[in-house]
Amino acid sequence: MTLSEQLTELARQAKTAARALGLLSTAEKNACLQAMADALETHEKELLQANAEDLENAIAQGLRPAMQDRLRLDSSRIRAMARGLREVAALPDPVGRILDERVRPNGLRLQKVSVPIGVIVIIYEARPNVTADAAGLCFKSGNATILRGGREAQRSNECIARLLVAAGQATLGERFPVHAIQVVPTTDREAIPILLSLTSYVDLCIPRGGEGLIRAVAECSKVPVIKHYKGVCHVYVDAEADPDMAEKIVLNAKCQRPAVCNAMETLLVDRRIADTFLPRIGRALAQRKVQLRADPDALQILQPLGREMPLELRPASEQDWYTEYNDLILNVRVVNGVQAAIEHINHYGSSHSDAIVTANETTARQFLAGVDSAAVYWNASTRFTDGGEFGMGAEIGISTDKVGARGPMGLEELTSYKWIGIGQGQVRS
Amino acid sequence: MTLSEQLTELARQAKTAARALGLLSTAEKNACLQAMADALETHEKELLQANAEDLENAIAQGLRPAMQDRLRLDSSRIRAMARGLREVAALPDPVGRILDERVRPNGLRLQKVSVPIGVIVIIYEARPNVTADAAGLCFKSGNATILRGGREAQRSNECIARLLVAAGQATLGERFPVHAIQVVPTTDREAIPILLSLTSYVDLCIPRGGEGLIRAVAECSKVPVIKHYKGVCHVYVDAEADPDMAEKIVLNAKCQRPAVCNAMETLLVDRRIADTFLPRIGRALAQRKVQLRADPDALQILQPLGREMPLELRPASEQDWYTEYNDLILNVRVVNGVQAAIEHINHYGSSHSDAIVTANETTARQFLAGVDSAAVYWNASTRFTDGGEFGMGAEIGISTDKVGARGPMGLEELTSYKWIGIGQGQVRS
Repeated sequence: MTLSEQLTELARQAKTAARALGLLSTAEKNACLQAMADALETHEKELLQANAEDLENAIAQGLRPAMQDRLRLDSSRIRAMARGLREVAALPDPVGRILDERVRPNGLRLQKVSVPIGVIVIIYEARPNVTADAAGLCFKSGNATILRGGREAQRSNECIARLLVAAGQATLGERFPVHAIQVVPTTDREAIPILLSLTSYVDLCIPRGGEGLIRAVAECSKVPVIKHYKGVCHVYVDAEADPDMAEKIVLNAKCQRPAVCNAMETLLVDRRIADTFLPRIGRALAQRKVQLRADPDALQILQPLGREMPLELRPASEQDWYTEYNDLILNVRVVNGVQAAIEHINHYGSSHSDAIVTANETTARQFLAGVDSAAVYWNASTRFTDGGEFGMGAEIGISTDKVGARGPMGLEELTSYKWIGIGQGQVRS
Repeated sequence: MTLSEQLTELARQAKTAARALGLLSTAEKNACLQAMADALETHEKELLQANAEDLENAIAQGLRPAMQDRLRLDSSRIRAMARGLREVAALPDPVGRILDERVRPNGLRLQKVSVPIGVIVIIYEARPNVTADAAGLCFKSGNATILRGGREAQRSNECIARLLVAAGQATLGERFPVHAIQVVPTTDREAIPILLSLTSYVDLCIPRGGEGLIRAVAECSKVPVIKHYKGVCHVYVDAEADPDMAEKIVLNAKCQRPAVCNAMETLLVDRRIADTFLPRIGRALAQRKVQLRADPDALQILQPLGREMPLELRPASEQDWYTEYNDLILNVRVVNGVQAAIEHINHYGSSHSDAIVTANETTARQFLAGVDSAAVYWNASTRFTDGGEFGMGAEIGISTDKVGARGPMGLEELTSYKWIGIGQGQVRS
């Protein structure tokens, strides 16, 4: 069999599995998820063995230490994967929700009902925990998954998928569709464009990871892609902000966990308060070892701080305003009020998460309406853009797209819908 | 300027216009739509002149008569376009709906609010009425449109867009974003792949028309595409169907308007009633001059009919089951009950609209759950899949996709959403 034939068969089997999966009851799906969680813990040794082989290979091939850490499994990480599956089991079933209902004048009753999307290809980096997380979320939402993790994690991923499927089979016997969770059985790079050309079988692709990976996937895909691009998030501190609140939000958005996509990359300060707020926030940021990259106005206001404390400060380049640092680096710019802030964000931002701090509701409403991002906040940190914080439970990522899903993608965002029309013989005249 | 530079500028202007358009009030948008409707009627002469030039050219280049008819405008068609715009003005604003609302334990209030998608490229055939319809629907939903109709209609389309924009400007003055409605100013085929590579500016492409056109667009696009593929729709007549109701639904689904996408192409009949139902429905269909293409079992039952009346009957080929005839031609197959019907539909259908006729609720529920289509009906005609019939008002088409929108796409389906978080200084711990 050629690679193309092999992948077509795999996708065809996934489609058949998706149809069977869509018919399982909530209780059946939850029982499988519980059994899957148990299986990961029970077979810890087998999984650690597969992971050790992956690691040994990857180290021999020179994988960087930070990447080794992502790849490595241990008891605590395996327990976390199992806990994730149990949490998904406890969440409400996103399938079968009645999203709309109407009775037409002719008596035809229409229901818009949530259904699984079908077959979802997930492409991600060498992080084996994503295999269990993504498989669990897709399983609960009735979708068959085709998982393609970074090649360094291939043995770990195959082992996880094998354990999950075996647990499902042990729970439901023949009713469990064995192709509901599949790992692409090759690390050949050619597999991705082939899979993403199979429009008859694959309904959606969700790439997770670096911007380069996501762009490459979006470029080659013939199936719909929901992209999770970088987060270039902003906080705008308005002249009418409570300075204590503004400081608290800025420090949280930048420093609490700088490596994540909902962390702030650029601080915008209203010119009317720049002279007072910038030195104060500059001091607090410098104490936390945040490097500042400033526009000329901010630079001038911040420079004197260097005389009282160690300060990493330099001019921001045009490229800096577009950059997701994922690090303790922050762009700072003085803007002429809320409209200038909105324009900066819509131009340089990544439509992820942006916040305004102000006591003025009119100004806030202008910001919330004008900023074209998945999540916009008034007097709260950008760090809240997260499935758990939104009360959705686990999430598969944060969509920066506007079609299909936007913002945190939990279980509901992994469903489509169908229209059901119930009549008594109605025909169209 | 190269074509690429010209289109980039056009798309960039559309993006800016979309942001301004998203901030217009419902009353402002409706006033524009009313003025646009009036303008089409007031400037009928100018529009008919542009259309006459298009027609003259197209006829000189050998356009087929059926296509000439689609291209031709007259007073009644112009009034219909104007009426369409007034109907859209009368529909509720799809922007600003609160789709979800929750207060988190930390007091953060989250609202999921509908917003415009942004910039939508609409690609369609040489039907100038689509220009006004699509522009009106997108305008009401706050989206800027870039319209690309068949080249034969270029003058008509440019004239319509010019009239709509002038009416908007006359209504709102400088508040009207003049690039909200644009016709691609060239008929160069190269324009489409260029436009659909501009991922920074274009948010969505909706191609309408033949399958070939849609596939070509989906193949080349780097922006999300919502596809409106063919309708290979089915009616399954179950053993427990009321035969009178079944006949009425079958005749309506096939004959009432055979050229549309929600008309039936294949009739599936339960083996248990084939001997009685097939001769009856065959007679009724033959009287309406429907050509029948049958599987061996149906063929055998139907053949004797040819002795009592003129009957066009022949064996169905494998390809026929996949075919959208848009004509008085019908495939007929005998199946072993509802599960076989579901499998046939999921294999050969186009996930558009399918119906079951039965008095048995269990059987009906199995069909409604098992058939993976945008609209599934129990005891009603497939012909109801339509924005107007669903109570959505006008529609831009019927999506056969599962991501973004599925089934009839009215105003609500032309929106995305954003999350608005309102706090009192909350930060993440």
